[in-house]
Amino acid sequence: MSVGRLDIIGLGPGPERWLTMETPAILALATDVVGYGPYLDRVRIRPGQKRHASDNREELARARHALALAADGAHVAVVSGGDPGVFAMAAALFEALEAGETRWREIEITVHPGISAMLAAAARLGAPLGHDFCAISLSDNLKSWNVIEQRLRAAAMGDFVMALYNPASKARPGLIHDAFALLRELKPAETIVGFARAIGRADEKLTLTTLAEADPAIADMSTLVLVGAHATRSFEACGRRWIYTPRGSGGG
Amino acid sequence: MSVGRLDIIGLGPGPERWLTMETPAILALATDVVGYGPYLDRVRIRPGQKRHASDNREELARARHALALAADGAHVAVVSGGDPGVFAMAAALFEALEAGETRWREIEITVHPGISAMLAAAARLGAPLGHDFCAISLSDNLKSWNVIEQRLRAAAMGDFVMALYNPASKARPGLIHDAFALLRELKPAETIVGFARAIGRADEKLTLTTLAEADPAIADMSTLVLVGAHATRSFEACGRRWIYTPRGSGGG
Repeated sequence: MSVGRLDIIGLGPGPERWLTMETPAILALATDVVGYGPYLDRVRIRPGQKRHASDNREELARARHALALAADGAHVAVVSGGDPGVFAMAAALFEALEAGETRWREIEITVHPGISAMLAAAARLGAPLGHDFCAISLSDNLKSWNVIEQRLRAAAMGDFVMALYNPASKARPGLIHDAFALLRELKPAETIVGFARAIGRADEKLTLTTLAEADPAIADMSTLVLVGAHATRSFEACGRRWIYTPRGSGGG
Repeated sequence: MSVGRLDIIGLGPGPERWLTMETPAILALATDVVGYGPYLDRVRIRPGQKRHASDNREELARARHALALAADGAHVAVVSGGDPGVFAMAAALFEALEAGETRWREIEITVHPGISAMLAAAARLGAPLGHDFCAISLSDNLKSWNVIEQRLRAAAMGDFVMALYNPASKARPGLIHDAFALLRELKPAETIVGFARAIGRADEKLTLTTLAEADPAIADMSTLVLVGAHATRSFEACGRRWIYTPRGSGGG
């Protein structure tokens, strides 16, 4: 039996207009499409194509399943939301591949970039990522609060704009409140904060506020939180409010 | 004269397959396309459409020109490489808009996300951005070495994966060497480093090495440099070497 191939795909934040041009053809060629159910629901499954839905928490099991299918000759597409390399399936696949069966290493693997949530959220808000920034996942299924705290402290020390992924966890609903309490110790009260919910989808909602006035409880599992640097600014134009971080922020 | 509109577009790292699905139609609707010459060369200018090329260093002047055209009724597309919000034109446009003529604030403005260089580079290398990361521009046209040093120190302290943009500057060719000298003080010698040059283009080149063995002189203006976290790993599969940062790196 010949070994198959594995395409690791990011579907972007939701709307088809933010897929990359190559994505529909790559999906159409797959014999098997693997992913978390709500992401699979965005894919038009063609006749004869197999759909393998799994729970969102089972990333490593899903990765092993996809690799096993490909090792048996399937042409597998693994789909993530956003970009597959940013807090999504690509890292789980390489983790499973490194630890897995030797024959899995014959599979032809390609990772295809996608529009990450922070890029879409930033575009909707203006240009908050216009200068140095960092992306931090607040999901603590796999890391401790100590690590999250160390990263938030470092990001504040470096005056990075912060994109906070996974701000709401069913397992630890207090975590986003702890994160905001820490940020309020570390950064000025007037620091600009944006909550970008369900970007590009029908229920999209943008909330622009400050660190002092922000209510972290509004961040749900579909929300990306942006916390500005010292230089991040806000102003009104075109009938709405925008935020941006000037090029060359912080000196020079 | 009615006020026009402005679409701020990212063309991704180069190949058409990494444009978003919406991009060709948005470009086709524009009456005027504004950008740095090599980015404009990627756009098929249709008959009747005006092409406005400018030097790469003149971001703010280019932004003002685009806003003035749109204020006079044009439908302007401003094109950047990568994502327009990441070290590209979107921040310059909002900076020019905030400081500019009041009537510019009537222009209808939309920022459209694109595939940033770090996402494409990460996809080619495996999944180095699989956990918390930061993006730092080493261009010092607009910021001092002190700020760059502060950010590199903070990124090392937080054990972030680092995506270093603009590693080579004609004005300051020594800067990438200074950055590597600092990183070698701050991080282990075996830290994984990737140089991703001209990703997705015919002259693409990937170099995987370690912080101790890296030659920063190979980073040119088309190179994105990825510096791993402690947890970033490297292994061989599918006839090549991959790097990835496991989910949940750094504890818990």
